[in-house]
Amino acid sequence: MDKITIQKELTDMLGKDALLSEELDLMYYSYDSSFFTKLQPASPYAVVFPKSTEDVQKIMQFAYQNDVNVIPRGAGTAETGGSIALEGGIVMDLSKWDEILEVDAKNMQTIIRPGVVHAKLNEELAKFNLFFPPDPGSSQMCTVGGMVANNASGLRAVKYGTTEQYVLGLEVVMPNGDIIITGGMKSRAIKNVSGLNLTKLMVGSEGILGVITRIRLRCFPKPRARGIAMAVYDKLDDAPATVLDVYQAGILPSGIEILDNSAIKAVNEFKPHINLPDAEAILLFEVDGNPAGVEFDGNLIKELAGKRARSVEWSTDQQRMTALWEGRAVTATAAARVRKDGTRVFAGEDISIPISRVTEVLRRIKELGAKYNIPIVNYGHIGDGNVHSAPVINPEIPEEVERALKLIDEIHLLAIELEGTTTGEHGVGAVRRRYASLEHGTALDYMRKTKEAFDPKGIMNPGKLI
Amino acid sequence: MDKITIQKELTDMLGKDALLSEELDLMYYSYDSSFFTKLQPASPYAVVFPKSTEDVQKIMQFAYQNDVNVIPRGAGTAETGGSIALEGGIVMDLSKWDEILEVDAKNMQTIIRPGVVHAKLNEELAKFNLFFPPDPGSSQMCTVGGMVANNASGLRAVKYGTTEQYVLGLEVVMPNGDIIITGGMKSRAIKNVSGLNLTKLMVGSEGILGVITRIRLRCFPKPRARGIAMAVYDKLDDAPATVLDVYQAGILPSGIEILDNSAIKAVNEFKPHINLPDAEAILLFEVDGNPAGVEFDGNLIKELAGKRARSVEWSTDQQRMTALWEGRAVTATAAARVRKDGTRVFAGEDISIPISRVTEVLRRIKELGAKYNIPIVNYGHIGDGNVHSAPVINPEIPEEVERALKLIDEIHLLAIELEGTTTGEHGVGAVRRRYASLEHGTALDYMRKTKEAFDPKGIMNPGKLI
Repeated sequence: MDKITIQKELTDMLGKDALLSEELDLMYYSYDSSFFTKLQPASPYAVVFPKSTEDVQKIMQFAYQNDVNVIPRGAGTAETGGSIALEGGIVMDLSKWDEILEVDAKNMQTIIRPGVVHAKLNEELAKFNLFFPPDPGSSQMCTVGGMVANNASGLRAVKYGTTEQYVLGLEVVMPNGDIIITGGMKSRAIKNVSGLNLTKLMVGSEGILGVITRIRLRCFPKPRARGIAMAVYDKLDDAPATVLDVYQAGILPSGIEILDNSAIKAVNEFKPHINLPDAEAILLFEVDGNPAGVEFDGNLIKELAGKRARSVEWSTDQQRMTALWEGRAVTATAAARVRKDGTRVFAGEDISIPISRVTEVLRRIKELGAKYNIPIVNYGHIGDGNVHSAPVINPEIPEEVERALKLIDEIHLLAIELEGTTTGEHGVGAVRRRYASLEHGTALDYMRKTKEAFDPKGIMNPGKLI
Repeated sequence: MDKITIQKELTDMLGKDALLSEELDLMYYSYDSSFFTKLQPASPYAVVFPKSTEDVQKIMQFAYQNDVNVIPRGAGTAETGGSIALEGGIVMDLSKWDEILEVDAKNMQTIIRPGVVHAKLNEELAKFNLFFPPDPGSSQMCTVGGMVANNASGLRAVKYGTTEQYVLGLEVVMPNGDIIITGGMKSRAIKNVSGLNLTKLMVGSEGILGVITRIRLRCFPKPRARGIAMAVYDKLDDAPATVLDVYQAGILPSGIEILDNSAIKAVNEFKPHINLPDAEAILLFEVDGNPAGVEFDGNLIKELAGKRARSVEWSTDQQRMTALWEGRAVTATAAARVRKDGTRVFAGEDISIPISRVTEVLRRIKELGAKYNIPIVNYGHIGDGNVHSAPVINPEIPEEVERALKLIDEIHLLAIELEGTTTGEHGVGAVRRRYASLEHGTALDYMRKTKEAFDPKGIMNPGKLI
């Protein structure tokens, strides 16, 4: 079916206001935050804004009958090209469908539509002394639907795990228009082992199996207190050693972040007032819980880190905590400014490797930067081995883009070589798909079998994940 | 292929010592702990004891080529008939394949074979100050492979979640003999969002998709301290109200258990020295963490519970904790003794309902017991709404068995009616399969599609789960 007919049929179905079809509007949907889609944007045939399960069902039935691709999209904050219509099709923008249907505080759960923004959900939950623990850096923008589709997380994954841990059930419209409810049709149970776990299969499936239209999430009691420790290291190797010491002492911090020398420099150049000490690495520990427990853990971390670090500071004072954390808070932005003529590209940016290989991976990435003559800023969630690398290039220079692409490929391959993965939290999308066979081998065949069983026509977000 | 030929072929393949084929031996594998298989035992054609992935592969290839069913089995502690050869076939007993291949303490994980017993794994991990948090009541007997296949949990699920949360990757032999590795072929990453999440699909799949031959598990730092609070209630309704007060105060206990009046009586009759106070309900809170944090939470729980309870006691003294917990520790055994001529049957024993419906469900189960004239003892994990009901009957009286079956059916239907599920932790197996359509509706079709995609011949553990 041609583009004009698709636009016309969708307009007839949904009304003019629930649709975008102007070229300029479509161009806005031709990329996300990934380097890949900056290089190769791809406009959809149309963008639709469904606001009911029935709308989604009608669109899917139409797409299924006419073999038209459908690409679900949240806020488009992803770095993987996951929500781009690479092979043409209808983009289903769910970001405006943002009702919090219910906070069922008595049963420690909430039921929402996919477009709810992460920060807004936690604002609402806070009124009930509850929270949804995963905490992506894009909290102010990203939708929870997008988080579920990508199994997103953030710096607190080390203690609280990833999004999947909190998803109790989903309503999903399948490629042929079937509506299914996972986790029990009418269930509000927190614990449930009935049936194959389609809920967890859907989490992280990046829109290739169906469209998520309702989400039932478990919530946790909001901890009463938190504290921050900052440890400064002359030797990079001492940083992961402290992380292990802390675990050995029975402490599970809510976050353990690292800034290596490249990140420290980037922060100090960007915001001189922060004035991070010149060092090979800085570790930041966040601890949460009750006030007495936080104080105990913090003092123990101070003692343990003190054995290896040049200096350690521990604080539970709100203002001081913000100051200690400021360097980490601005790192992503600072990374983008290390070259006047350059910009940070999101690619190879969230590899995840075993904690014991963190030092090695940081050294090897530094070497790769030198080899390709591209500055790279490194930081990330050392507590679970999830490293953020920020290559900074001038994307106007084709030769530099070429070099960057080779560098990025080597970073991905390095992650696999060091018993890690190409993506710890951002997802596969279009950009890590080429590594799927290397990472998964024969298991990839069974991912494809699952895809074929759910989407025999291959219309759901083609060209992604597997 | 007939039974004798199957036995002969397997003997040729594996040697005589890796096989059982005598009727008496096979009878031992005709039941598990479920009431259902006591009533309808079913012997397999043969029992094999593979001790390598290659053995499992050879067996699966043979079974696939000859359309013979294969039923994987751990220690057989399940209450659902999940490991019984209901439609004939080969039982694959994995309980003797129990190597702990590696404790990779630096990377907070362990790699094991499926037959490792839960308690033994935690003994080994304790040497490294680590632990695997899920804690089934059958810890001393059950295998971790069985836990993964059933997504088992226990009383600490309220804080630590279920088995699935800790499974980082699996080696699985598929029905046709394919060997797949989920979670990344060579990965030791803790965080990984690459590919469809086959790991979590396999967890809880009860052996209907493949045979789990290796398990990579995340471990947590072992907490330094714990404490126990016991609160005694004159009114049943006040117990769940306290649970909510505790959550509201930002506390996530590692366990919150309830004994209702039936359980209190059963315990006191079984072990008079425990001498639990006569009351409508007793709550037990377990808190873990660092010593200061535990003390803080414990005192707060004492204060909060004190507003509604007749009495509250809080202790961190090892001996006193054991005494406070003793009533809960013996409840399962005590339940089995409430009638001299009766025995506890495992059926309808682990429904899970929203916390807000716990009082209602306990009252309704009591009414059902009266209606069918069958004593029922109730206890369980109130923190996540997972209730254990123990009907006690004389299984020698056919008419009583009939009544019990009706009662059990009503308990399952009650769980669904009250927005819960028929099984919070023990699994579906053969016994809850009849409720799958009622619980899952159209989602069941997609569970079946998944099954067909992975096991087109339907040889893996037929008659279970879906």
